[in-house]
Amino acid sequence: MKKIAILNGPNLDRLGKREPGIYGMATLADIESGLRGEFGGAAELEFFQSNHEGALIDKIGALADAGCDGLVINPGGLSHTSVALRDAIAGSGIPAVEVHLSHIHGREAFRHVCVTAGAAVALVSGFGAGGYAAAVRHLLQR
Amino acid sequence: MKKIAILNGPNLDRLGKREPGIYGMATLADIESGLRGEFGGAAELEFFQSNHEGALIDKIGALADAGCDGLVINPGGLSHTSVALRDAIAGSGIPAVEVHLSHIHGREAFRHVCVTAGAAVALVSGFGAGGYAAAVRHLLQR
Amino acid sequence: MKKIAILNGPNLDRLGKREPGIYGMATLADIESGLRGEFGGAAELEFFQSNHEGALIDKIGALADAGCDGLVINPGGLSHTSVALRDAIAGSGIPAVEVHLSHIHGREAFRHVCVTAGAAVALVSGFGAGGYAAAVRHLLQR
Amino acid sequence: MKKIAILNGPNLDRLGKREPGIYGMATLADIESGLRGEFGGAAELEFFQSNHEGALIDKIGALADAGCDGLVINPGGLSHTSVALRDAIAGSGIPAVEVHLSHIHGREAFRHVCVTAGAAVALVSGFGAGGYAAAVRHLLQR
Amino acid sequence: MKKIAILNGPNLDRLGKREPGIYGMATLADIESGLRGEFGGAAELEFFQSNHEGALIDKIGALADAGCDGLVINPGGLSHTSVALRDAIAGSGIPAVEVHLSHIHGREAFRHVCVTAGAAVALVSGFGAGGYAAAVRHLLQR
Amino acid sequence: MKKIAILNGPNLDRLGKREPGIYGMATLADIESGLRGEFGGAAELEFFQSNHEGALIDKIGALADAGCDGLVINPGGLSHTSVALRDAIAGSGIPAVEVHLSHIHGREAFRHVCVTAGAAVALVSGFGAGGYAAAVRHLLQR
Amino acid sequence: MKKIAILNGPNLDRLGKREPGIYGMATLADIESGLRGEFGGAAELEFFQSNHEGALIDKIGALADAGCDGLVINPGGLSHTSVALRDAIAGSGIPAVEVHLSHIHGREAFRHVCVTAGAAVALVSGFGAGGYAAAVRHLLQR
Amino acid sequence: MKKIAILNGPNLDRLGKREPGIYGMATLADIESGLRGEFGGAAELEFFQSNHEGALIDKIGALADAGCDGLVINPGGLSHTSVALRDAIAGSGIPAVEVHLSHIHGREAFRHVCVTAGAAVALVSGFGAGGYAAAVRHLLQR
Amino acid sequence: MKKIAILNGPNLDRLGKREPGIYGMATLADIESGLRGEFGGAAELEFFQSNHEGALIDKIGALADAGCDGLVINPGGLSHTSVALRDAIAGSGIPAVEVHLSHIHGREAFRHVCVTAGAAVALVSGFGAGGYAAAVRHLLQR
Amino acid sequence: MKKIAILNGPNLDRLGKREPGIYGMATLADIESGLRGEFGGAAELEFFQSNHEGALIDKIGALADAGCDGLVINPGGLSHTSVALRDAIAGSGIPAVEVHLSHIHGREAFRHVCVTAGAAVALVSGFGAGGYAAAVRHLLQR
Amino acid sequence: MKKIAILNGPNLDRLGKREPGIYGMATLADIESGLRGEFGGAAELEFFQSNHEGALIDKIGALADAGCDGLVINPGGLSHTSVALRDAIAGSGIPAVEVHLSHIHGREAFRHVCVTAGAAVALVSGFGAGGYAAAVRHLLQR
Amino acid sequence: MKKIAILNGPNLDRLGKREPGIYGMATLADIESGLRGEFGGAAELEFFQSNHEGALIDKIGALADAGCDGLVINPGGLSHTSVALRDAIAGSGIPAVEVHLSHIHGREAFRHVCVTAGAAVALVSGFGAGGYAAAVRHLLQR
Repeated sequence: MKKIAILNGPNLDRLGKREPGIYGMATLADIESGLRGEFGGAAELEFFQSNHEGALIDKIGALADAGCDGLVINPGGLSHTSVALRDAIAGSGIPAVEVHLSHIHGREAFRHVCVTAGAAVALVSGFGAGGYAAAVRHLLQR
Repeated sequence: MKKIAILNGPNLDRLGKREPGIYGMATLADIESGLRGEFGGAAELEFFQSNHEGALIDKIGALADAGCDGLVINPGGLSHTSVALRDAIAGSGIPAVEVHLSHIHGREAFRHVCVTAGAAVALVSGFGAGGYAAAVRHLLQR
Repeated sequence: MKKIAILNGPNLDRLGKREPGIYGMATLADIESGLRGEFGGAAELEFFQSNHEGALIDKIGALADAGCDGLVINPGGLSHTSVALRDAIAGSGIPAVEVHLSHIHGREAFRHVCVTAGAAVALVSGFGAGGYAAAVRHLLQR
Repeated sequence: MKKIAILNGPNLDRLGKREPGIYGMATLADIESGLRGEFGGAAELEFFQSNHEGALIDKIGALADAGCDGLVINPGGLSHTSVALRDAIAGSGIPAVEVHLSHIHGREAFRHVCVTAGAAVALVSGFGAGGYAAAVRHLLQR
Repeated sequence: MKKIAILNGPNLDRLGKREPGIYGMATLADIESGLRGEFGGAAELEFFQSNHEGALIDKIGALADAGCDGLVINPGGLSHTSVALRDAIAGSGIPAVEVHLSHIHGREAFRHVCVTAGAAVALVSGFGAGGYAAAVRHLLQR
Repeated sequence: MKKIAILNGPNLDRLGKREPGIYGMATLADIESGLRGEFGGAAELEFFQSNHEGALIDKIGALADAGCDGLVINPGGLSHTSVALRDAIAGSGIPAVEVHLSHIHGREAFRHVCVTAGAAVALVSGFGAGGYAAAVRHLLQR
Repeated sequence: MKKIAILNGPNLDRLGKREPGIYGMATLADIESGLRGEFGGAAELEFFQSNHEGALIDKIGALADAGCDGLVINPGGLSHTSVALRDAIAGSGIPAVEVHLSHIHGREAFRHVCVTAGAAVALVSGFGAGGYAAAVRHLLQR
Repeated sequence: MKKIAILNGPNLDRLGKREPGIYGMATLADIESGLRGEFGGAAELEFFQSNHEGALIDKIGALADAGCDGLVINPGGLSHTSVALRDAIAGSGIPAVEVHLSHIHGREAFRHVCVTAGAAVALVSGFGAGGYAAAVRHLLQR
Repeated sequence: MKKIAILNGPNLDRLGKREPGIYGMATLADIESGLRGEFGGAAELEFFQSNHEGALIDKIGALADAGCDGLVINPGGLSHTSVALRDAIAGSGIPAVEVHLSHIHGREAFRHVCVTAGAAVALVSGFGAGGYAAAVRHLLQR
Repeated sequence: MKKIAILNGPNLDRLGKREPGIYGMATLADIESGLRGEFGGAAELEFFQSNHEGALIDKIGALADAGCDGLVINPGGLSHTSVALRDAIAGSGIPAVEVHLSHIHGREAFRHVCVTAGAAVALVSGFGAGGYAAAVRHLLQR
Repeated sequence: MKKIAILNGPNLDRLGKREPGIYGMATLADIESGLRGEFGGAAELEFFQSNHEGALIDKIGALADAGCDGLVINPGGLSHTSVALRDAIAGSGIPAVEVHLSHIHGREAFRHVCVTAGAAVALVSGFGAGGYAAAVRHLLQR
Repeated sequence: MKKIAILNGPNLDRLGKREPGIYGMATLADIESGLRGEFGGAAELEFFQSNHEGALIDKIGALADAGCDGLVINPGGLSHTSVALRDAIAGSGIPAVEVHLSHIHGREAFRHVCVTAGAAVALVSGFGAGGYAAAVRHLLQR
């Protein structure tokens, strides 16, 4: 059974509380239980959230050491700025799909550039919580 | 039953023949029959491909008149340049998901800016043929 | 009697149906009959609309061959991107006035640059349907 | 009867003397008397010219206090640089049409950006003296 | 007793009348009497407002000649464009605090660059009328 | 009594030791005790400093959950780069004032752009330690 | 015998009529008969002109299917804007030489960037009608 | 005898008082009397200084009407921003030499671009007060 | 004996495992023991690695307090983005040499700009593990 | 008989030895003897190569003095940087064709801008050694 | 008696022959003998011209060694590109005045930036041959 | 024994005389004798300095022909501008280390971009004369 890790970056711990008009009503726990329900039988899922860039990089390194077949990552605002996170993804050798809940291409101009996405194999934005499922499905079918 | 239109822009008629290392082996007919198989029972699907920007705009206008619940559009290279196509999508009032077979965020810099995506509600890139299915699924669940 | 051609580009066939808050309630047919009413006695008017850049270029070439005293052109979104259309206008030798229904200088930044306008002799934006009449009047008085 | 103010900015006092190849032979007095002749029965016209940005801002403020139904403004070179004038127009709440005698979109690149136009409701360039009449007509018909 | 001059630039004579949603309900006279009430016993206050860049520069020169311990300046739209005003502040040798009523960092991009602020010793934006008091207080405590 | 949190970002733990010519002689403890002295009777103050972007984001989330009436934040160098911190401030719904000890508009060009300030309601720079007091006062009076 | 296709884009149907000072007196028919005269014995030549980007893309796809040994393409104004045409050339796998009649490097700045040329193997500009012959010769000798 | 006007813009009334390290110790009166001494026998000199852009434009217009053989202009900070002043110089038809006391090419980057200089026939920077004499001499010898 | 600290930023804990084609086969432990072997007799060496920007800033602050004669820092991807880390280095007053294992000037364009290097006294890139030794040697000889 | 000079700039003395994958196997001597063979009867050919910008400028000046009917110049890397060489070509009055062996429009971005080409009448890139022959032929037919 | 060196860069050996509409009819020898006539009694003049950047740098170094009180340099096209020449001027410690015959601020945009001028103390452009005399005079009076 | 060439570009012949605050007191001869002392037994060293870009390119070509195992090059100001020198290094196939005496990343912005460094395998800046030794050591150990 494939191992898939779902990583969430800064501010995603506050889903459901934070600007629901943009990010939706579901909490991160809701999303995680939804994914377990849909993919729990097909993949070994691991979840991790941190507001710390460094903790996300630590985690990606640990996943690379432990063996991991796919990474779903919503880097939040770090997507637009973090070369270090990009390097972590590229250096792990794990195929990654970048997910954004909101449709970043239709928001402020500074959200149109995704530094980290250059190290991913795919990106999905604007699917809301459904973006995580689409990403997991893609990693399982690849 | 929801009506979903799947539009493909320039060069996508040549899938399977064109740079398969980047765009994959499946033809557009393969993709279309796959989508019919997966979603034919749940949605009324309509397919359209043209290498002409104007024909795509004509089609979007006709869909808006006929009534259409969702648009899946792979604008090909027009994504990066066409304000006219963006205006057509925005003017139609139909929720649209932009699809790119290859992971445009990991290719040349001129493919990182998506003019048309600003008028869509979501974008998926790098899922290969699976991106169409992800887009249809999202439009049905919305 | 002067011959004046009024050309409309992408999405202008959908006037009255498309984002009326921005583009107004009048249809293109309404605008055309209004112009016929106002200028039909003073000028030979010809109308043409297409969503195809190529068809607009074909038409401008044909007008140049047939003889034409003035061009009113609303290039829609092509205004901001089409060097080919700009070259067609410049190459025709026909004095052209570029018209935009909405006030493009007060909208998104990518609408502030008008590639085609460099080949026109004048531009009017934000007059709604009245912009066409202003343009015809200017071409007749020139 | 609607009150319409026609404001002219720097260097427009010298129309007829200044680069007639670009700006035409008519003087500002000629233009003003032409407008009075055409619109004097339909609107209360007020004319004002100054080479001083500050005097134009003073005037716009006074017009806002006195009540004014429309503003026609040719900001001359201030169009491309003055945020203060833009703020004055926006702050007055009076609908304004920006007029340029020459076709600024076909001249030097620094004339393609109109800072003040963002606060207007419409813009006309390249109509020569006829641009003022087109602007007044638009404000009366609005 | 320290002498403090409070200068206001273009359009600030219209506070209370102009876009109160952005700039608040208080008039400039209200702000001035508030400052007199709060600081009248601690500082010799002088007020000046003009819509003319040149008049502001004249005034700053006169203040430098007369002796002045601090300058509070709200340059309005000139903040973003006027090198001449910046040079006047720098050339006066008077410590200056730039004040903006609205939060310019959260508005249009062209308001994010403050040319004049480079010659000031401090800047406050978004405090509404309170920004003037904060500025005076800072100049008195310095 | 209003709850006000005063957050300090990277390197502000070293105030008094670090480049006193730019940042002044006061330590962060001095500033905090000064604020307690001035506002302790009028507001419930909470202080937090971290060199970790993630810890600042964690804290802002916790403050939003606990209820907080105002945020004073000196993001240090993160001001110019962190979209994640900006998103945290915006997502918290707490009105925030951004403070910079030095006058950032008069320093290197890369300090003229404040990414985080777009999510604040006000900004003060160059007031030295007095900027915190000005910010608290503004939040109490709002 | 090698098959060579000579494609001409927008406005090149009007050679001889259009700005002869820039583009020369020869018509496209003149150029084509010249090429037949010079190379008709050495290569199977096929000519195609369209003002439609989509028709050029359709043609390139058809040539790739039919087998073609070399492409000479003058994309006209599309050279500077069309990613879709670039993708068509790249996707066809046919070696292409881009031809411009005028010396684009000595004209307006927007003609110095050739989007489509990145997918060609060579470019010639400023040779007038002789550029086509040079291109065919190069493709035959390659 | 040739008529030469020497115009000085914002802040040049304060020469001798303002940043003497950059601008020197001589006052504007010193410079003017020096020029009268050196050129009084060879040219009819007229001096004008204003901190008002509009007054400078008024003056240039008046000089053009009165007849003037040469203009020496130090636009101060307006050099870098004023299209209106540039237009006034160009529109006057009087040959103008732009003078800067300090060496603007060796100062801040925003002083490297001279908007007004494009309408002059020559520029001299960094000669201190001697720049005016060099300019007058050039206009007399031309 | 001089105290030298060798700091490594994000992803450098994974040397030897991560893209060895770019970063080499040696682990960080290998590099550290090599440095101890070469310089252990001449300097007191301290090693620190973290994927957390904040932890690096904490460490630099602690080193400044404890006394430290030289800093060797490989900021990894933070080099290109972190103003906060730059400020920490500058604020510590410790002479620092920035080290990059790979030759950043020959990689992607976003690696050509080093934000942190502006606060260092020297930089070495492309020496592989040897860059650390070169840096220590330089700090000892300074 | 027309006199044609063929000039080669930096590094072209090393053809055949230098990156043959990019520049081909032929030496400069091979190319020169090929040209003599092909055009020796029709034109007086002169060859010159130097790695020194100044020597190329000296040579162009000498050719202008001696009389020369056409210049074929491969400026190598100087094409992208040398205003001095551009000025030499423009100042000579000799019609020049710029030649690049490789297809510069398909290489690194800094090779897409040709400073010198603005002074030439034509450019050919990517024809390999055949580019020289195409250029000579064009100059003879002009 | 002060020693003044007058250096001329690329293409200035061809004055009088090269584009006289832009650069005038005087030869360099004419200019040099004019300067000797005017300043030969007041200064020891030395003249040097080369089309080689390196020879100019060699000369500046030799002048610095030999002792030289002022440098007049017309770098020609090198002005806009040569950091090496700028460094030579700055490194010599000799006060330098940069001279351009034509008014570079009124020509192509790439002539508006003067890299070398940053190391000079003054610049004069557009005075024709008179610019050299103005520069020498300034160096003697300094 | 490996052959290592040490090349120095413009102005480096003046080390010790030129701005010693930036470049240090050692002359180039001092540096060369130091390197001979340190590496003379381990490598065959060859030294070359020229202020001429062309001479440096000639030399690199000659070294490539003669056989050379490593290049240490301080291109001086040419580093920031010379594509021709970059091409020479790349074309030689000799591994090169670029050296800068001063810390270019901490100086003017135009020194932060190194055109030539893209063709080197490593770069060291700010080590003063020690940078040459570090570079030689790296080439010997590679």
